[in-house]
Amino acid sequence: MSEYVIAVVGATGAVGTKMLKMLEESILPISRVKLLASKRSAGKELTFKGEKVAVEELTADSFLGVDMALFSAGGGISERFVPEAVKHGTVVVDNTSYFRMDPNVPLVVPEVNEVALMNHKGVVACPNCSTIQMMVALEPIRKAFGLTRILVSTYQAISGAGARAIAEAKREFMEILNEGVSPKEVVAEILPVTSDKRHFPIAFNALPQIDVFAKEDYTYEEWKMINETKKIMEDDSLKVSATCVRIPVLSGHSEAIYFEVEKSGVTPQEIRYCLKKASGVILEDDPKTQTYPQAVNSVGRKETFVGRIRKDLDEEKGFHCWVVSDNLLKGAALNSVQIAESLHRLGIGKERKKSNCFKES
Amino acid sequence: MSEYVIAVVGATGAVGTKMLKMLEESILPISRVKLLASKRSAGKELTFKGEKVAVEELTADSFLGVDMALFSAGGGISERFVPEAVKHGTVVVDNTSYFRMDPNVPLVVPEVNEVALMNHKGVVACPNCSTIQMMVALEPIRKAFGLTRILVSTYQAISGAGARAIAEAKREFMEILNEGVSPKEVVAEILPVTSDKRHFPIAFNALPQIDVFAKEDYTYEEWKMINETKKIMEDDSLKVSATCVRIPVLSGHSEAIYFEVEKSGVTPQEIRYCLKKASGVILEDDPKTQTYPQAVNSVGRKETFVGRIRKDLDEEKGFHCWVVSDNLLKGAALNSVQIAESLHRLGIGKERKKSNCFKES
Repeated sequence: MSEYVIAVVGATGAVGTKMLKMLEESILPISRVKLLASKRSAGKELTFKGEKVAVEELTADSFLGVDMALFSAGGGISERFVPEAVKHGTVVVDNTSYFRMDPNVPLVVPEVNEVALMNHKGVVACPNCSTIQMMVALEPIRKAFGLTRILVSTYQAISGAGARAIAEAKREFMEILNEGVSPKEVVAEILPVTSDKRHFPIAFNALPQIDVFAKEDYTYEEWKMINETKKIMEDDSLKVSATCVRIPVLSGHSEAIYFEVEKSGVTPQEIRYCLKKASGVILEDDPKTQTYPQAVNSVGRKETFVGRIRKDLDEEKGFHCWVVSDNLLKGAALNSVQIAESLHRLGIGKERKKSNCFKES
Repeated sequence: MSEYVIAVVGATGAVGTKMLKMLEESILPISRVKLLASKRSAGKELTFKGEKVAVEELTADSFLGVDMALFSAGGGISERFVPEAVKHGTVVVDNTSYFRMDPNVPLVVPEVNEVALMNHKGVVACPNCSTIQMMVALEPIRKAFGLTRILVSTYQAISGAGARAIAEAKREFMEILNEGVSPKEVVAEILPVTSDKRHFPIAFNALPQIDVFAKEDYTYEEWKMINETKKIMEDDSLKVSATCVRIPVLSGHSEAIYFEVEKSGVTPQEIRYCLKKASGVILEDDPKTQTYPQAVNSVGRKETFVGRIRKDLDEEKGFHCWVVSDNLLKGAALNSVQIAESLHRLGIGKERKKSNCFKES
């Protein structure tokens, strides 16, 4: 069995470092990792399986001899460098939102739609963190009972906004707790969105904005959840709506999900049974013992945790649940590595496609 | 105009001290306040309008000569002492859940159903904090366009669980930030529910349990929102469901609400216009300038803040919004004092009813 040369683009970032860790724990046969980042980070050393690897500057020529590349360095970097990688015959797993809605790019959560990988043309996209865990929880239910509607309110962790947001949040908390600054007086520079005009404190606050505002007054994060869900579940008629909120949690996204199934007469017990057997899911649902998923317990775990399953009180086909997962692992780094593993298992991880998804320039 | 002798029961608690402050700012003509609490707190001094008032121990005889009593010392205290107060002819505004669903007790948010006070039989109940702000936001919409369905996910502050929960949360945060304790290793003794068996950290966490679990696997807090909403809006056919979650915010409850109106063709602009004119509401809704309600900004404010109003993408009559209010003020102390003010304005604050809502024992 031949081995892979794997590049990690954005290797020094919050997700990049987790990708490296997930690759270390992966069953993929890896001959070499290539760590790529901006000029500023070039020369830094990271450890992979006990050996030091120097970070190199990302350039158009970085992908020579690279079999697979995992991108997580922002949409702008993916826009510019993914075509370069594909030109070199590298198969790309992109963790940014840039290619997700491209009809030529499969959007994959391996537990849900691994088969979509068969049609890849050089690029596979990894969905948004909050979409992934919702798909892991709801796909087994959709398969068993059909699914017609999803309404989700998210409780998203700060690490989803990167390492600088985490540092900002810790500073804010310490100013409030150690120096007595009022929560509304602390100065923010990163959250809710670095590139947006105004910034607000996250310490002891809840911010109903993740990513910038887009059409119909939904944020881009909310549109990601809506559009990606329909693409992954391959159902444009599925009703989906979302309210995405950042809360003062370091890692671990939580979601309060209302969903309606197609079939009549389904019981919460049947939903639980179905999730108990599902791949990548851990059922934590026992009100008698106060057992339900919690963000702090999800950190470092690879699974998606589901609990608080109960019937809606008015809608015969409606249910509620609470879904939690580590947003940096299953929500990003782990799912990207799992896509790479699936490509390997399906024997299409080294395909040098003659026709790729980019037109020749 | 005659003046009132007003008792505050639970005067030293998180809500009681805010009640005293709200009474100071109130237009009610008050001749004297009587501060009642447990034996442990008796003798403590609090300040009312610049003068020191000693806290007295609550006994069955405490209500002699008291016109109105505001109770906020837990359901057990209300169960035992509200009948004693009523026996003395005192009109009671009870902030606990004990009498809320009693058909003989009006459940009142003055902006919404002040008229229900006319039928009081000695006791008026103040709704649950998370219900109150939802009613303030949705009642103007119900009046204008009808309302058929509510699905709410809450983001509730720690102060709703009392002063000891706040102290616990601050300790947890400081252990994590100053001493490097892992968020899942901190030891909790209060939250999510003091009287329940297990306790979990709230620092950097989200706890999908407020109050104990009850029938159908909904928590009692969720049932409060469901049942109280139907009672206040006087509509048993209204579909209501709730997921109640505690997050690391000190004060200020936030709510992501999905609602369906009865009328067709309503626009978000019409909803905004309707809320702009509504009593007790401040509209903060401009995505272009990132203007939306935030928990930290609600602290100390008397109004309920509404924003992120947008149409559901699938349901023609469905809308989403984000509602924030200070849970200790409008959610408790202020609403109780406003009920007292309404009783005064309606001329029924001193009614010595011959038939009260308690049978003679």
